[in-house]
Amino acid sequence: MSTAEDLVIGILGGSGHEGSGLALRWAKAGYKVLLGSRSVERALEAAVELNARLERPTIIGVTNRAAAEQASIVVMTVPFSAQRSTAESVQDFLQGKVFIDVTVPLVPPKVARVQLPAAGSAVASLQEMLGEKVKVVSAFQNISAHLLADADKPIDCDVLVCGDDKEARDQVIDLAAAAGMRALHAGPIANSAAAEALTSVLISLNQRYKVNTAGIQITGIPHAMTPEFVAVR
Amino acid sequence: MSTAEDLVIGILGGSGHEGSGLALRWAKAGYKVLLGSRSVERALEAAVELNARLERPTIIGVTNRAAAEQASIVVMTVPFSAQRSTAESVQDFLQGKVFIDVTVPLVPPKVARVQLPAAGSAVASLQEMLGEKVKVVSAFQNISAHLLADADKPIDCDVLVCGDDKEARDQVIDLAAAAGMRALHAGPIANSAAAEALTSVLISLNQRYKVNTAGIQITGIPHAMTPEFVAVR
Repeated sequence: MSTAEDLVIGILGGSGHEGSGLALRWAKAGYKVLLGSRSVERALEAAVELNARLERPTIIGVTNRAAAEQASIVVMTVPFSAQRSTAESVQDFLQGKVFIDVTVPLVPPKVARVQLPAAGSAVASLQEMLGEKVKVVSAFQNISAHLLADADKPIDCDVLVCGDDKEARDQVIDLAAAAGMRALHAGPIANSAAAEALTSVLISLNQRYKVNTAGIQITGIPHAMTPEFVAVR
Repeated sequence: MSTAEDLVIGILGGSGHEGSGLALRWAKAGYKVLLGSRSVERALEAAVELNARLERPTIIGVTNRAAAEQASIVVMTVPFSAQRSTAESVQDFLQGKVFIDVTVPLVPPKVARVQLPAAGSAVASLQEMLGEKVKVVSAFQNISAHLLADADKPIDCDVLVCGDDKEARDQVIDLAAAAGMRALHAGPIANSAAAEALTSVLISLNQRYKVNTAGIQITGIPHAMTPEFVAVR
């Protein structure tokens, strides 16, 4: 298992709700986190705010470019409309690295309606664009930002981890566990379509049942078969 | 809620594992079930076998055509390759009825890989083909036939119910509850893509973790907000 010492996590679009929540949880777990944004001002601002909540200056605000360049694992949490351009802008720095794409292909205004891209999966398409030297892993699409923000609580939603490289998936499963989530090997990158589509279903469930944290749990697989997730410190 | 007296359920492809399991559970709950098959011999055989397990002759074996004609609600559990032709062959009898399509677009041999059709969802495409007078509802894609067969146990997997007609979805949610499953309104028929894709993920999870009943549960929605499902009699 990767330990906090040997990993620097860079988050592209880290000033958004999803990215900030992940940054907070990984920082709590002892990882060094580079919080990236297109605007360095926004990144610095978000880092200051999160560090105040952490009560230690663990998260560093940088540009997306610097986050991709200096991190050993890169995570992208940007809107669907910015997915390709953001990845393209840092493509050179992703070679040989694990690249966690959290993109959900929501098409406003009907975000509660599944509207997958013609190619099937937004994340699988990105893997194709970036080439196989970038180890794209799809994860965290179904995790509510509300739940992430409450960083002292384990999360009652499992993470489907899809990717063509098993070791890369293993790393992501460990990172999810460190952030308080149960994660599972959910197959090749093509299977990301399921997680992407599910997000619109969860939004639909939130609307229909007037809640804001609908999620999923995988049943039928004993917890002993997946890395134990830790209550975040 | 629909009661057992006023509903006749017809199951197209009812001699398969999924259809037989549903037939058994609905018969136990007191519904009249017409078990259809392309071959009436196979339908009769399956009905005899299921009635032996029920210890009463509740399930009637018929042709798919008779099942569609005489039922008030029609359910289709056939392989993806037979989906369109089966529906077409009984199309006249589906007008004005609720038509539950359980189809999962698996593409052998790689059934653990999500391979949704170009149009997005197999069930949404069928709704388009049949026209809006047939109230297509997508449901039960994620329910393992193993779990269905064990007809005295409630099922540890939620049912995502998608369809463009809310009343039709309500009926299906009640039918799922009668068969021992929690079901939820998961949005318009387009959202069936999520349930369809998820089945390949569940197959992938079954393979990876060497189990055979991986399923999903929706978290974040209190059970009090959905019809209570009953232990089957």
